Amino acid sequence: MPTTAIYAGSFDPITRGHEDLIQRSCEFVDRLVVAVADNSAKKPLFSPDERVDLIRRAVGDDPCVEVMQFRGLLVTFAREVGASLIIRGLRAVSDFEYEFQMALMNRNLSPGLETVFMVPSVETTYISSSIIREIAQFGGSLEGLVHPSVAQALVEKYKIGNAGR
Amino acid sequence: MPTTAIYAGSFDPITRGHEDLIQRSCEFVDRLVVAVADNSAKKPLFSPDERVDLIRRAVGDDPCVEVMQFRGLLVTFAREVGASLIIRGLRAVSDFEYEFQMALMNRNLSPGLETVFMVPSVETTYISSSIIREIAQFGGSLEGLVHPSVAQALVEKYKIGNAGR
Amino acid sequence: MPTTAIYAGSFDPITRGHEDLIQRSCEFVDRLVVAVADNSAKKPLFSPDERVDLIRRAVGDDPCVEVMQFRGLLVTFAREVGASLIIRGLRAVSDFEYEFQMALMNRNLSPGLETVFMVPSVETTYISSSIIREIAQFGGSLEGLVHPSVAQALVEKYKIGNAGR
Amino acid sequence: MPTTAIYAGSFDPITRGHEDLIQRSCEFVDRLVVAVADNSAKKPLFSPDERVDLIRRAVGDDPCVEVMQFRGLLVTFAREVGASLIIRGLRAVSDFEYEFQMALMNRNLSPGLETVFMVPSVETTYISSSIIREIAQFGGSLEGLVHPSVAQALVEKYKIGNAGR
Amino acid sequence: MPTTAIYAGSFDPITRGHEDLIQRSCEFVDRLVVAVADNSAKKPLFSPDERVDLIRRAVGDDPCVEVMQFRGLLVTFAREVGASLIIRGLRAVSDFEYEFQMALMNRNLSPGLETVFMVPSVETTYISSSIIREIAQFGGSLEGLVHPSVAQALVEKYKIGNAGR
Amino acid sequence: MPTTAIYAGSFDPITRGHEDLIQRSCEFVDRLVVAVADNSAKKPLFSPDERVDLIRRAVGDDPCVEVMQFRGLLVTFAREVGASLIIRGLRAVSDFEYEFQMALMNRNLSPGLETVFMVPSVETTYISSSIIREIAQFGGSLEGLVHPSVAQALVEKYKIGNAGR
Repeated sequence: MPTTAIYAGSFDPITRGHEDLIQRSCEFVDRLVVAVADNSAKKPLFSPDERVDLIRRAVGDDPCVEVMQFRGLLVTFAREVGASLIIRGLRAVSDFEYEFQMALMNRNLSPGLETVFMVPSVETTYISSSIIREIAQFGGSLEGLVHPSVAQALVEKYKIGNAGR
Repeated sequence: MPTTAIYAGSFDPITRGHEDLIQRSCEFVDRLVVAVADNSAKKPLFSPDERVDLIRRAVGDDPCVEVMQFRGLLVTFAREVGASLIIRGLRAVSDFEYEFQMALMNRNLSPGLETVFMVPSVETTYISSSIIREIAQFGGSLEGLVHPSVAQALVEKYKIGNAGR
Repeated sequence: MPTTAIYAGSFDPITRGHEDLIQRSCEFVDRLVVAVADNSAKKPLFSPDERVDLIRRAVGDDPCVEVMQFRGLLVTFAREVGASLIIRGLRAVSDFEYEFQMALMNRNLSPGLETVFMVPSVETTYISSSIIREIAQFGGSLEGLVHPSVAQALVEKYKIGNAGR
Repeated sequence: MPTTAIYAGSFDPITRGHEDLIQRSCEFVDRLVVAVADNSAKKPLFSPDERVDLIRRAVGDDPCVEVMQFRGLLVTFAREVGASLIIRGLRAVSDFEYEFQMALMNRNLSPGLETVFMVPSVETTYISSSIIREIAQFGGSLEGLVHPSVAQALVEKYKIGNAGR
Repeated sequence: MPTTAIYAGSFDPITRGHEDLIQRSCEFVDRLVVAVADNSAKKPLFSPDERVDLIRRAVGDDPCVEVMQFRGLLVTFAREVGASLIIRGLRAVSDFEYEFQMALMNRNLSPGLETVFMVPSVETTYISSSIIREIAQFGGSLEGLVHPSVAQALVEKYKIGNAGR
Repeated sequence: MPTTAIYAGSFDPITRGHEDLIQRSCEFVDRLVVAVADNSAKKPLFSPDERVDLIRRAVGDDPCVEVMQFRGLLVTFAREVGASLIIRGLRAVSDFEYEFQMALMNRNLSPGLETVFMVPSVETTYISSSIIREIAQFGGSLEGLVHPSVAQALVEKYKIGNAGR
């Protein structure tokens, strides 16, 4: 049977760690929906449209990948796109605990929906979107941490941000 | 593409937790090889043949599942059976750490081979083969913890063991 | 000696997990003060009065349980109500660490006051007030996760909240 | 109602950490059964009789405390002595995980039996029986780590052990 | 070679735990730069100048210690002051994970810069600046938790704060 | 002051992870004693002499490094060689907990002796001596995991071991 999986997150912005997981997932699923959470309460740096656009640039035109926005519960969106798998990256024990709890809750809310966890490549274990934003804000080098398009978007975002202060 | 996954362990003996994971895996893989580690250094309670037999009884004739024995490195065996996925259950943080390390090492040894982690059903989180053996040894109730065939095999094993002392 | 214990939290709102712990505690303490923290800085969904009311509805008229509000340090309030035990639920390792630190600090601040930790029932391990609020906000099913009165209060709260936007 | 609790372990030998927990438990239970596991498979340094004797010397004649040996499942023994509570010390996250699993399993095996966890005093967090044995074996100072009777028993045990080699 | 190390944080305010680590570090480094992060986004209780002043009072005139403010990336500041070591305190597993990730990222950003972790004295493991602020806010005793100058500064800060409400 | 540090372990055998930590330590200590624990109870694969020899081959003639064997308590040996620092590698949370406990105990046994923890390079996080032995036993590739001399010693050791069965 063809499998549709969902890989959800803020992607504010997408990092090399996310890209790595997307590629690995496409090795065993037929269709991967990268789902950008439109959670305005978190006050993201990039708008949902910008985040979708950056993911598309970083991932390229892999036929396995589809990038979409969503609001509300992940399980509802998963059902809408016909996904039977949720894919999550695990970098650390603290990730694991919250993820574990969410996996159990999502299974309770939508019994047929399974969560699988994957380990990112070692080179990307220390990369997170929040660390990336902090480095960009203070002008540190982003080489190897994000796609060149993302690096440029970050530079522009903080240039405007600093000018506007 | 049809996906073959491998689910390896001692299965000494198979528990309801293992059964749960086997069923969940078959929802998104086409073929699941349950691989019984023939590790005599660990002095298992059941012989590899007995463990394979108990798994077959517990799992029944699910066409998705194949039960095999293996010796040596898991990555070598995975390659032999054509598996591209290793499936592991995660119950606790301490599991997670060792598993994380093994997943990275296995990827290093066999780059195309991916590991995915799954969460067992909450009802089985506290079941492990070693706790099962301890309960059986002292005559505690195994109801709901293992398949009836496994419960009976445990009773017989410890009856003989106690008689032989 | 009759033992008074205190079980403090935000209870925003009370979940089936909290109810489970309250019942278990009453098996070995004589009086349990459920203490609702009036912490306006956290911007709770329900007012302290509403939270006390929902706990009373969920718990019913168990003579062991008393529901109260408090402000300030837990150790001060514990002394005021004559409690010698603090009861805490542990669901995850990350809970544990913070709780461990607080237990040591509370013992330092009030030497006779002991903290004991309990494990909730497996069916409630993945339930937290914040996940409950998120599910309610997006119209997911709350069945089995909270008391019917709490479910109804959540529905009304978010109806008003959405209307007011 | 008068509460009987059980505090089980190898106590090979009893440390200041164990003594601390015994004293703290007696603040809120009426009777505490200190249960020495007679687990010959673990090849303890002290015999069960010696371990019971050392606990009695270390604890003194506290009317709250009763020291007993047991074999088999803890839940069975708890029922025999009329205990409704199992008391466990938590020093570290790794303790916590195994303890959590055992608490859930014991509740499954004996529904009325509750487990509560306590935090030892900070001064004893790094003391464990295995570290104590290692220090004693190589003639390190045991002051403040174990009761003087235990220190002497360790010195004698290793003197004999070394002479016998 | 003389070693310069950096010990960075919010120090809002400095606790006995921080003091303990500063003293231990000076046993093996020649110069320790205590670096106060000027992170206005976190809305600290004390201004950067006040925090520097309190550290100076608490640490006294130890020739090993230098107290400075910094903004931006720690690795940039470390380079500016000629530090080859970053010193971090580890109290808990949850600290460890974030710290681990930051150590790897900082090494990536500045290859010659090493991070070493130290364990505070057991008496200070449960002390954190946030717990200190909470105790001070509600008038709890700060004895043994912070330097007397810090205790006084906290009392004055919250007196003003409460008056201004 | 010139600093002597000690880096102790089984080194059965030394891995690229150990080598990495030795090099990093020599950046900030003047003399590093690599201390091979002669713990026959653990039934190591290589004799203490072989392990010392393999470390010397892997490390080369770095004037900072000295390789020695020791028996008994690490704190006693540290005092004998004039070390004021113990260096430990941290790969995982489970490492951390035991290490934390040992650091506190060693400080209790020898107050002037400090423990610092370091993070290995990401490329070596998943390498441990026990995984190396397992890979070698079953003929997996050791490239990049250990020094060539160690790889050869492992091959010979298992050739003899297999022949002798």
